Amino acid sequence: MGTTQAAVDDAMRRALDLARRGPAHGPNPRVGCVILAPDHTTVLGEGWHRGAGTPHAEIAALADATARGHDTHGATAVVTLEPCNHTGRTGPCAQALLDAGITHVVHAIPDPGATSGGGADALRAAGVTVTSGTRADEALQLVHHWHHALTTGRPWVTLKTATTLDGRVAAADGTSRWITGPQARAHAHTVRADVDAIAVTTGTALADDPALTARAADGSLAAHQPVRVVVGHRNLPAGARLHGPGGELLHLRTHDVTAVLAELQAREVRPLLVEGGPALAAAFLAAGVVDEVHAYVAPVILGEGPAAVAPFGVSTIAAAPRWRTVATHRLGDDVLVVAGPTSQEH
Amino acid sequence: MGTTQAAVDDAMRRALDLARRGPAHGPNPRVGCVILAPDHTTVLGEGWHRGAGTPHAEIAALADATARGHDTHGATAVVTLEPCNHTGRTGPCAQALLDAGITHVVHAIPDPGATSGGGADALRAAGVTVTSGTRADEALQLVHHWHHALTTGRPWVTLKTATTLDGRVAAADGTSRWITGPQARAHAHTVRADVDAIAVTTGTALADDPALTARAADGSLAAHQPVRVVVGHRNLPAGARLHGPGGELLHLRTHDVTAVLAELQAREVRPLLVEGGPALAAAFLAAGVVDEVHAYVAPVILGEGPAAVAPFGVSTIAAAPRWRTVATHRLGDDVLVVAGPTSQEH
Repeated sequence: MGTTQAAVDDAMRRALDLARRGPAHGPNPRVGCVILAPDHTTVLGEGWHRGAGTPHAEIAALADATARGHDTHGATAVVTLEPCNHTGRTGPCAQALLDAGITHVVHAIPDPGATSGGGADALRAAGVTVTSGTRADEALQLVHHWHHALTTGRPWVTLKTATTLDGRVAAADGTSRWITGPQARAHAHTVRADVDAIAVTTGTALADDPALTARAADGSLAAHQPVRVVVGHRNLPAGARLHGPGGELLHLRTHDVTAVLAELQAREVRPLLVEGGPALAAAFLAAGVVDEVHAYVAPVILGEGPAAVAPFGVSTIAAAPRWRTVATHRLGDDVLVVAGPTSQEH
Repeated sequence: MGTTQAAVDDAMRRALDLARRGPAHGPNPRVGCVILAPDHTTVLGEGWHRGAGTPHAEIAALADATARGHDTHGATAVVTLEPCNHTGRTGPCAQALLDAGITHVVHAIPDPGATSGGGADALRAAGVTVTSGTRADEALQLVHHWHHALTTGRPWVTLKTATTLDGRVAAADGTSRWITGPQARAHAHTVRADVDAIAVTTGTALADDPALTARAADGSLAAHQPVRVVVGHRNLPAGARLHGPGGELLHLRTHDVTAVLAELQAREVRPLLVEGGPALAAAFLAAGVVDEVHAYVAPVILGEGPAAVAPFGVSTIAAAPRWRTVATHRLGDDVLVVAGPTSQEH
């Protein structure tokens, strides 16, 4: 039994590694699956989810086992997330596991989805032994944007700032290129390539004419481009770079953060990056919906110029939103402070 | 010869370790000295400087050799700084080395002092073989505040800020306790215990009533207390905490940073910590005399409230003072960014 538990734990670790091959962005969670032989000594198949519209991890793992010529009857499926129970872009995984003769399922965390959840119950009702909780923390961390969106009903919001040591995003004359250095800017592009959407105000779009694309150091576009969300009532000029190559352009003619988030949730946006300007940061902070802050800080002092965040109604220190520092990264001469929720919520 | 060089290098490393036992604050540099037997295989004596008014490292090392019963004739003195050549609070070390029969001196870096320097020349004139440059970078790093004061004619200035992620030092209602957490505040006290003076404006003194002492976590005063410098014309109330236990209180009734630095240089202040408020930070920045920044950043956002630094005449990004990030430290949920000179100057 100890050996079997160790084998299942190894398989879950492998399943998590497989899951990480999937994309961090997109509507679906990253999931990995390993099919173990009935005696748990042999891996029959492996699979992971490559993104919306492609097979779920369980289906991929069963297909891999079949391709390898293995019989999966009486086998154990070790999967990082509870198998789904609904027909979405693909069929329900619970049924596919039953059809393949799987008799044991070990999953790391339950699926909180109202429509996708319930797979464990369906499997149990059909006589499959189902256990949950193996490496649950790692599995939750891997899908926390998606999990957050399903449990709170809105995207995971990361506020990005890039400031001097005294909190300025530009000098008094409006110049801001460059406060941070090339390594920090390159890092910001890797973050863009991992989110579903980036939001700025029309004010920022008109003032800075940003492209809001995820680019490599050589300027080429990354394979995945986030939706470019512009919030506000003003029109963008026909020649704006936002009309150029990159992700879909979504102009939301509102100042209501709740409406913005509802629209993005309906579009299955999971991670959202709020890039500015100061008024948009303030609106998200005022709504209490900033889950994480990415603060790039450059060793520069300006003394004046616009601040990263406009006033949002906090007048005393005890009322200020506070996060927990999750990580710091040196990026050349700049420092990235990643600050996340103070609670355990992901 | 290779063996001898290795022995001298070992002795210099030891001398640097001894030097580090001395205080980081105070008018004199930290110096260590090792007396090697003529064949370099034996250490005859060791010493280090314990601070102004106590014997220099060479004198301490010679005394140690004597106490151990060793004859120092024909011996080599390995010392982290060129032996001094003047009678200050103590007699000239060059003469003491000659009197002790030392025939070789190896020092790491020359003494840039107009009065204290020249020891190497005096020793050579008396027939001693003198070499310089062994572990020079380490030796310079060890005394860089002192070296800076002697070569530039003013103290080494560290500007300290403690801000939110958006650069605020207090909320709109003036509350600032606490933006940073206990670990960051404890760290700031260890820095105070290593500097010669702390400067604030009368405005900060009147608004915050700070003690400006170096305290341990239990509130007890550190052994060394920096001079408490208050800059500005207004009087302090009789009951101000600045009149309480702590370092000397020095009220400089001026707004001229050059005059402040000249007064502190005349008092042999080497490291000076500028703690605020925003106007004092701005004055030092405008004068171009901020050598280093200690920026404590807390994962909090306020959106309004006073900034760490008042305007100081920089209106465009290219004109902003910029440093090199020397180190970052996680202090609980806060991050300390230490930013130093962009050049090699220490």
